[in-house]
Amino acid sequence: MANERTPDSAKKELMETQRKMAAYEHALALMQYDGATTAPKDTADNRAVSMSILSEEIYRLGTAQETVELLEFLDAHKEALDEKQRRMVYLLLKDIRDMKKIPMDEYVAFQALLVKADDVWHRAKETSDFGLFCPYLEQIFDTTRRFAGYVAPDKDPYDHWLSQYEEGMTQNTLDAFFGTLRSELVPLLQKVAKAPQVDDSIRFGDFSPEKQEQLALWLMETIGLDLGHVGLSTTEHPFTTSLGSHFDERITTHYYPNDFVCSMFSVIHEGGHALYDTGSAPDLAYTVLDGGTSMGIHESQSRFYENILGRSKAFCRYVFPKLCELFPAQMEGRTADELFRAVNKAQPSLIRTEADEVTYSLHIMIRYELEKKVMAGKLAVRDLPEAWNRLYKEYLGVDVPDDKHGVLQDSHWAGGLIGYFPSYALGNAYGAQFLQKMRETVDVDACLEKGDFGPINDWNREKIWQFGSLYTPTQLLNRVLGAPFDPLPYVAYLKEKMRDVYGV
Amino acid sequence: MANERTPDSAKKELMETQRKMAAYEHALALMQYDGATTAPKDTADNRAVSMSILSEEIYRLGTAQETVELLEFLDAHKEALDEKQRRMVYLLLKDIRDMKKIPMDEYVAFQALLVKADDVWHRAKETSDFGLFCPYLEQIFDTTRRFAGYVAPDKDPYDHWLSQYEEGMTQNTLDAFFGTLRSELVPLLQKVAKAPQVDDSIRFGDFSPEKQEQLALWLMETIGLDLGHVGLSTTEHPFTTSLGSHFDERITTHYYPNDFVCSMFSVIHEGGHALYDTGSAPDLAYTVLDGGTSMGIHESQSRFYENILGRSKAFCRYVFPKLCELFPAQMEGRTADELFRAVNKAQPSLIRTEADEVTYSLHIMIRYELEKKVMAGKLAVRDLPEAWNRLYKEYLGVDVPDDKHGVLQDSHWAGGLIGYFPSYALGNAYGAQFLQKMRETVDVDACLEKGDFGPINDWNREKIWQFGSLYTPTQLLNRVLGAPFDPLPYVAYLKEKMRDVYGV
Repeated sequence: MANERTPDSAKKELMETQRKMAAYEHALALMQYDGATTAPKDTADNRAVSMSILSEEIYRLGTAQETVELLEFLDAHKEALDEKQRRMVYLLLKDIRDMKKIPMDEYVAFQALLVKADDVWHRAKETSDFGLFCPYLEQIFDTTRRFAGYVAPDKDPYDHWLSQYEEGMTQNTLDAFFGTLRSELVPLLQKVAKAPQVDDSIRFGDFSPEKQEQLALWLMETIGLDLGHVGLSTTEHPFTTSLGSHFDERITTHYYPNDFVCSMFSVIHEGGHALYDTGSAPDLAYTVLDGGTSMGIHESQSRFYENILGRSKAFCRYVFPKLCELFPAQMEGRTADELFRAVNKAQPSLIRTEADEVTYSLHIMIRYELEKKVMAGKLAVRDLPEAWNRLYKEYLGVDVPDDKHGVLQDSHWAGGLIGYFPSYALGNAYGAQFLQKMRETVDVDACLEKGDFGPINDWNREKIWQFGSLYTPTQLLNRVLGAPFDPLPYVAYLKEKMRDVYGV
Repeated sequence: MANERTPDSAKKELMETQRKMAAYEHALALMQYDGATTAPKDTADNRAVSMSILSEEIYRLGTAQETVELLEFLDAHKEALDEKQRRMVYLLLKDIRDMKKIPMDEYVAFQALLVKADDVWHRAKETSDFGLFCPYLEQIFDTTRRFAGYVAPDKDPYDHWLSQYEEGMTQNTLDAFFGTLRSELVPLLQKVAKAPQVDDSIRFGDFSPEKQEQLALWLMETIGLDLGHVGLSTTEHPFTTSLGSHFDERITTHYYPNDFVCSMFSVIHEGGHALYDTGSAPDLAYTVLDGGTSMGIHESQSRFYENILGRSKAFCRYVFPKLCELFPAQMEGRTADELFRAVNKAQPSLIRTEADEVTYSLHIMIRYELEKKVMAGKLAVRDLPEAWNRLYKEYLGVDVPDDKHGVLQDSHWAGGLIGYFPSYALGNAYGAQFLQKMRETVDVDACLEKGDFGPINDWNREKIWQFGSLYTPTQLLNRVLGAPFDPLPYVAYLKEKMRDVYGV
């Protein structure tokens, strides 16, 4: 049968294999989503059993001799492949070569560990008990370090994981990047600290989850999401997931009954991820190219919608009448400009997801420095809470009252995402470069003031979304910008924003 | 390797194979549950793709040469197996032998058809448009008939499907069973019709879904469900599903804001299914013996909790103070006895799931007669609405205003469950026999009046639940009752209830 294989039949097989893998990924993603949104609280063990079995099945499928032969055949017939097919074969072969280096039983055990760790993390966070979570996190760091050793023995383990989320990223690059941000943002923050603080009382009061959900759904529609294909649920920590393909996307949020702003911007943030995912060209569905190309580019989209668009003066003006409609008593006597200033208040704080744009990168920097040290064996996991609290004091000047508001606040480590955090800061910087370019042809502020996301989304779809993972982050940046990555437009954007809000 | 197989190693393989099948079933059940509860409305096609692929995988696994050899080895070493293992091997071999007779592509296509049919049925019901659903239902009946021909060519196709849900059941038996019910219940109904109708206004008013949900969760706890393992969601048509094992069970309900009784009893009904499932002995988890033995026995439990226990005078007295707490204004001046009479009002109606106990079996009889005719080719699917409406007039004396309240009301046919309906009526009759037996050792009314389900659940667990599918329905009835199936205790139970409510 292998003798009868032709490039055309092999291309068909390639699509079938990816379609099958997508079905398993659908099942795994749905089990995880169900666990976070709907599942009864004592069902994590049952999910762990099923997920470890299905992970084993997908591992077998992805690394089967049959699959390897198919991909190597296609790799040897590159001339018969189009650009997309070539990239699929490259990514799948890379995955197989990486996965084959990880013993299957360890891979499966890690998947089961992550399911349990996520459950334990939820409980640990609830009771602010790092000790409960610590042994799981130790295992996660150990496994992550060990897997890096299997896959890229000549590479620094943390560099390996950084480049899993952002191809080619290294600690050297990030040290320089964060250095620039630090040298520019710390003086900016100092200027802001001397200016009178803005009044953000507009965000606080009595905002029922039911009304906040109406706001969330309205925002999703406003930014251009198709609610027939993108669902909304509630979870402790908001996230976005694709089920099987970009045709079924789910975002989640968390409603605080005394503050509508948290959910509002988390919905726009996750909505940005969902726009990117669901913007993949239809023919990328059920292939490895479906969805975004890297975590950094993904975060560039989510944070572009959340901050650059969502927290702009123009969009605040568009949203304000809707807030008056939903919360007439609470908005009585308020103005759109108050909203704009409130959602751009800069102030050192404890929680990353609620941090303003200026301090945000410092939150990331802390996580980056801690991950780096733990991965290098220079910091023990059990000492993370102390180190966390020390750095928050040092960079942000805040005292962490408990681990719930400190080291236990994020779900990322419980999910095994070591090396992911820097993408958020990279995303901010990419986004500001995209904005600069977009403004050459799109009157962004005029669109936002009308709530018309059409031209903005068209630009993003044409330049970024449609390609899914066809291009690497570097290739994509070059295509879109005609220039390399540069953090300075982001710094300029923040300075302008602070001038607007604080007059500094 | 096959040469080295020993009974002990084969028993281990048997458990591993079933554990793997349970993981696929978890994925498929969760996708279906997600589709009914949470998924955005245009995602059915995406689910159909994944579900047909995973169905194909489970089909391959279940019918693989390796699996067949394992089971035949175990079948040849019966003396080394305990009672449970022997039953697992029997059921799995029977399934394989049946499944092998169905061409794989047709099996997979049927799974995909059912996913789409369910989606179309939802839309068709919404708009009361049978024409939309008709071509799908035709395909479902055709496929069902064809599959029966593959699996049991010498058997009447409808008899084949009846005995899929209730082993050994035939149209002959059911004709006799329904004959008895008809001859006893029609005169009873006539007597009731002459008595003054009860006042059921207590159930109507303004009952917010939020409060109804609180009632639902309280009822679930009251009847003895472990909310750490049993979840509650809302759907158009309530159902119960197990995910992977009986350790993760989900029930659903539907809240009508103007009537709290519908959801109240549907929660107790689905709760009865969930009690039976989650009552399986722990060592049955991840095996084919996990969960109930037949649809009839399953319905005997759900309808036992819903009707025999839930609609008893004693339980109404226990529930009433809770209703006063949740709905103080609506319960003002009402009594527990009013509740008892209201929830036992007998009156011919349009909707099966809301029918009282006396007319319920007539709803089932109509579906039974229609299925029988369609399966025998004596009635075309397109003529179902007319035939449905005619029989509702004939047996129940009601005019069906539209297909939404007629032939489109139930999800069963859209789910491919042809031959399932009679189980509901059988379940009623089994339940009354169980009650008679339970009363020999348990003071059921005293328990209900205190809301103490402990002794009732212990009896059911010991006699019925723990065994899962270890025994056939007939074996189980004989074990529990020491007597064969008999519909007369059910008739006696209904007569007593009507005496209590209507004084007839």
